[in-house]
Amino acid sequence: MTNGRRAIGLDIGGTKVAGAIVSEDGTVHAELRRNTPDTSDAGTMNGLLRDMVSELRAHEAGTGVCAIGVGAAGTVEWPDGRIRWAPNSSYQDWDLRADLEAATGLPTVVDNDGNVAGLAEARLGDTRNDDMVLLTVGTGVGAGIMLGGRIYRGPHGLGAEVGHMTINPDGPRCGCGNHGCLESMASGTALARMGHNAAAHDPDGMIAGLAREADGEVTGRHVTTAAMAGDRTAQSLFERLGRALGIGIAGINAIFEFEVVLIGGGLVDVGELLLGPARRAAREFHYGPPGVRPVPPVLPATYKGDAGKIGAGLLALEEA
Amino acid sequence: MTNGRRAIGLDIGGTKVAGAIVSEDGTVHAELRRNTPDTSDAGTMNGLLRDMVSELRAHEAGTGVCAIGVGAAGTVEWPDGRIRWAPNSSYQDWDLRADLEAATGLPTVVDNDGNVAGLAEARLGDTRNDDMVLLTVGTGVGAGIMLGGRIYRGPHGLGAEVGHMTINPDGPRCGCGNHGCLESMASGTALARMGHNAAAHDPDGMIAGLAREADGEVTGRHVTTAAMAGDRTAQSLFERLGRALGIGIAGINAIFEFEVVLIGGGLVDVGELLLGPARRAAREFHYGPPGVRPVPPVLPATYKGDAGKIGAGLLALEEA
Repeated sequence: MTNGRRAIGLDIGGTKVAGAIVSEDGTVHAELRRNTPDTSDAGTMNGLLRDMVSELRAHEAGTGVCAIGVGAAGTVEWPDGRIRWAPNSSYQDWDLRADLEAATGLPTVVDNDGNVAGLAEARLGDTRNDDMVLLTVGTGVGAGIMLGGRIYRGPHGLGAEVGHMTINPDGPRCGCGNHGCLESMASGTALARMGHNAAAHDPDGMIAGLAREADGEVTGRHVTTAAMAGDRTAQSLFERLGRALGIGIAGINAIFEFEVVLIGGGLVDVGELLLGPARRAAREFHYGPPGVRPVPPVLPATYKGDAGKIGAGLLALEEA
Repeated sequence: MTNGRRAIGLDIGGTKVAGAIVSEDGTVHAELRRNTPDTSDAGTMNGLLRDMVSELRAHEAGTGVCAIGVGAAGTVEWPDGRIRWAPNSSYQDWDLRADLEAATGLPTVVDNDGNVAGLAEARLGDTRNDDMVLLTVGTGVGAGIMLGGRIYRGPHGLGAEVGHMTINPDGPRCGCGNHGCLESMASGTALARMGHNAAAHDPDGMIAGLAREADGEVTGRHVTTAAMAGDRTAQSLFERLGRALGIGIAGINAIFEFEVVLIGGGLVDVGELLLGPARRAAREFHYGPPGVRPVPPVLPATYKGDAGKIGAGLLALEEA
């Protein structure tokens, strides 16, 4: 820790908003969490964020925080901090940076949630590196790309949407409307879809049984539970999911020269069930002789659900 | 032209080596071309390049050139200028930068041929732009990526191999050994393969006829000739080729935020037969609402076969 500067990091997701006071070495000094309101329009969200900032600052009597950083799901204009569009939230055209600066008086930066999570891993993760990608495999597939120690965003913040590169034009329909995006084949949503189909084909199987016990539709969680309990069908779905992820990884490894590929998000908790097939496919589809173009290691991310708020705080300390 | 500095640009391809004296505004003051020797090992190539540099310098009595830039097919270590590997040439582990500096006494830079061609387009093309990609569609699919006005190479020059991102894991085998690379579906090699199959299915068709007249195998040239003469079968092959190219473009547009996508290489001479379906697929598979994430225009490159030597000269003037 070079000095005692601290910032508030906020991570706005589709189901919850996490906040923390973060110092430059990633230490979390206070934290809190709120559910994302069902009506997540800009006015409601502004009120929620203002309250969270007030509550966090109350923890810090005397020491204070110097800035706010926000990571938000969706397309965020950089450096303006305006949220243009979010496929899974009702806010859009939201001048979040301006609104939060006006409400708090603190300099604020706003970035995509994948970008700030990638920053946390690049700066403070176990494999800290200036040239790397973090893929977050959850409901969707998010990403943070670091090139030469800087977040790659494109000139206006519209880049790094790795989850929506096409890995098979004949693949399933994605939530974004396209077909065969990486996200459509390697996300929790893809896992739920595959699990649903597997249960329909085998109503006596473990996946179908778990869904019946829960009295509902098959979810990714049922497939995960079955796979970790040794169910071969569920494990084969992770094999497909991991292979699709690895094909996407090979594609980005052709374009970039990364020294490490990190996998975060909820699904990485299954470990080798996902990472094993992902590594094999990333190697199978890798471009060039490994002695000439090395295959970067595919590793689990260091920070789990905390990457967003910590990275948002770091971004504020670096750029606000 | 800010001053009169000039450099020698050399473009090393699989069939020919082009050389020129280039000034900062892209003016070519002298040029020459040699066939690439059948035995393109490092020793033979060093002799050829040394002779070409001598001959070019003889044109410039009194004014002189200050540096040499080289664009070469293959994997080139940056900034060392060592060619690690080239899928279609016999040179490898060739210390080209050191060899050429020793032979000529001029500061030298060596880069991938797609990178220097992209530099020429970014600096001097009709759509000069700091954030763009040039895809060269010829025997293979090469690329030059410009981010914020700089060539993106990765930390050691191993990046930007866009032609080898996977766009369909069930696609045809690529020259690199993988399946379904962009290059395997959107290159002259892909066109020849599709033409060969079309001729086998329709021996009385125009493609088969052109190959018979030439007394040989179907080549991409036969398909191009037939398509430009109005043959529907040949045109449908360009439709497939262009669609594959557009799917690849959509993938890189998800990852990057480019303001223009340029298509160069020999196949772009067919114009809309290739560009039309490429634009349609790039739009069909584009991520995000066009009002939020604009679809960059897909345009033919400004420089045809000259992009390599001009870009190599520019690179020498900027970085040698």
